[in-house]
Amino acid sequence: MDNKKDKADEFGIIGRYFRDLAGDAAQVIKGPGDDCAVLQIAPSHELCVSTDTLLEGVHFPVGISADVVAARTVSANLSDLAAMGATPHSFVLALTMPEADEQWLSEFSAALKALMETHHIPLVGGNLAKGPLSLTMTVLGYVPDGETIYRSGAARGDGLYVSGFLGDAGRGLARVLEGNISGYLSERYTHPTPRVTLGQALRDIATAMIDVSDGLVADVRHLASESEVDITIRLEALPLSDELMSDVGRTDALQMALAAGDDYELCFTASQDQESRLTKLGDDLGISITRIGEVTGEGSGLVQVVNGSDELIDAEGYRHF
Amino acid sequence: MDNKKDKADEFGIIGRYFRDLAGDAAQVIKGPGDDCAVLQIAPSHELCVSTDTLLEGVHFPVGISADVVAARTVSANLSDLAAMGATPHSFVLALTMPEADEQWLSEFSAALKALMETHHIPLVGGNLAKGPLSLTMTVLGYVPDGETIYRSGAARGDGLYVSGFLGDAGRGLARVLEGNISGYLSERYTHPTPRVTLGQALRDIATAMIDVSDGLVADVRHLASESEVDITIRLEALPLSDELMSDVGRTDALQMALAAGDDYELCFTASQDQESRLTKLGDDLGISITRIGEVTGEGSGLVQVVNGSDELIDAEGYRHF
Repeated sequence: MDNKKDKADEFGIIGRYFRDLAGDAAQVIKGPGDDCAVLQIAPSHELCVSTDTLLEGVHFPVGISADVVAARTVSANLSDLAAMGATPHSFVLALTMPEADEQWLSEFSAALKALMETHHIPLVGGNLAKGPLSLTMTVLGYVPDGETIYRSGAARGDGLYVSGFLGDAGRGLARVLEGNISGYLSERYTHPTPRVTLGQALRDIATAMIDVSDGLVADVRHLASESEVDITIRLEALPLSDELMSDVGRTDALQMALAAGDDYELCFTASQDQESRLTKLGDDLGISITRIGEVTGEGSGLVQVVNGSDELIDAEGYRHF
Repeated sequence: MDNKKDKADEFGIIGRYFRDLAGDAAQVIKGPGDDCAVLQIAPSHELCVSTDTLLEGVHFPVGISADVVAARTVSANLSDLAAMGATPHSFVLALTMPEADEQWLSEFSAALKALMETHHIPLVGGNLAKGPLSLTMTVLGYVPDGETIYRSGAARGDGLYVSGFLGDAGRGLARVLEGNISGYLSERYTHPTPRVTLGQALRDIATAMIDVSDGLVADVRHLASESEVDITIRLEALPLSDELMSDVGRTDALQMALAAGDDYELCFTASQDQESRLTKLGDDLGISITRIGEVTGEGSGLVQVVNGSDELIDAEGYRHF
């Protein structure tokens, strides 16, 4: 219980690897090095906050590189901001590791810095403790007052849309566990793309939104439940990558698209009259946006999966694949 | 790596134990249940953010009650806000535990709720993961623009002050480890008092401030270093409780006051002309405020401990006691 020495090491480590990551972002009045970070929030904006823990052996494989740990932690958290339509503001990171592994910290810090520059988000505070490898990131974002997109808000007749491809990260994880850490599918798992710019662009288009982290059916259920509507997903409309199709075939690819998590794509509803804006938005951002179903009416959050001939698929069966 | 089932359990547990803790605080636009919490920050205020991890066996003894875990986690985090002069706004909590222990969760949730009501701070989001027992709390607070109190700002001639008594929590921890979980000293460790109201009242009085979490000398060093001043601590001035004195005697009590952490008292500097305001403030709040030293001049952050006859004490020696 006497952690004085750990504390002394902690200060040194934080100084070396994390303190200069804050940069000189205008929204940061004071970064790491005091009891709190002190931040400026633009007037007339709402603040979005999310916290997420990733544990070795649960949320990423034991022994995977620091670069992948950084990418998955940052992407999972930024994806939560994207799902609200929020602009990234800053984040704090609580890191627990068995010992101060300088090689790991150095790689992790470099990867974190690159991600922060890509997404314009400074690290403003942190905590380092001795224990099993895990990372808890808390991310802050902002949205103009009243423009935040919730899981609730979907209305009868809205289309259901998803960005990118589904199922790639699920197959990617299997490949990584088999030892294949490179290639498109593996990299969809190791280095997912949080849809931050798309999320912001959907502020006045989407009626409800969630990110696909637990699996499409599970996540659409959350959206349907919070919106108090029923939703139908059309199996034949699910966007599948050529790589996934050729790797596992169409049947397994569809299962993965329905049930595998970790894709961090955005799933949202929008009224029919937004169709052309969505097409243009996808073209502008270079992100495919696919209509995969519709809100069938007010309801208790029922999600049905139908195939081309409107035959009902057992979505529950997919959930536990 | 397939955590679908854990995820399903997670939603149920969060719903049962944590969702209704958000209450109906005006600053919370949306609490738990979406991808992010959505918060209202008052205009013309700075946001203070801190994150802190507490691990079983490191920051609290193995097997200690959920009530103590809640109290220590919340107090450690609120103390960081207090040290900036911030008003608590809200917090998110990432909880990792080996299994969903409902008895523990029930006790923890009840303790958390009581603490939240005492300190007027809602829980707005969380995360639950399976792993060794640990808690990472991220706390948000706010201060009117420009009134935040930093570790920097101490100036030559300022007095050095501390709230309450020092060393009690250090002795309290030893008593808890011996099996004595009740009594004043043990409770100063198990249920520390974050000085939230005092911190806010010091906004236009303190020139620099830190909370005593690592030990007085270690923490004053941080303050001196960030303020670029040298500071002298007067041993005979250290506030010691009667309970600590009678339990361990004056010599050991002084050592604990200098080096033991976990007291979560506020240590701050203020100019000489604030002496009468400080006396009145302490009387009003019922908190003793003791002058324990002074800022001797600009410097590199040197902290000296002297006894009554100005004999220099080896502060380093105390650090590792």
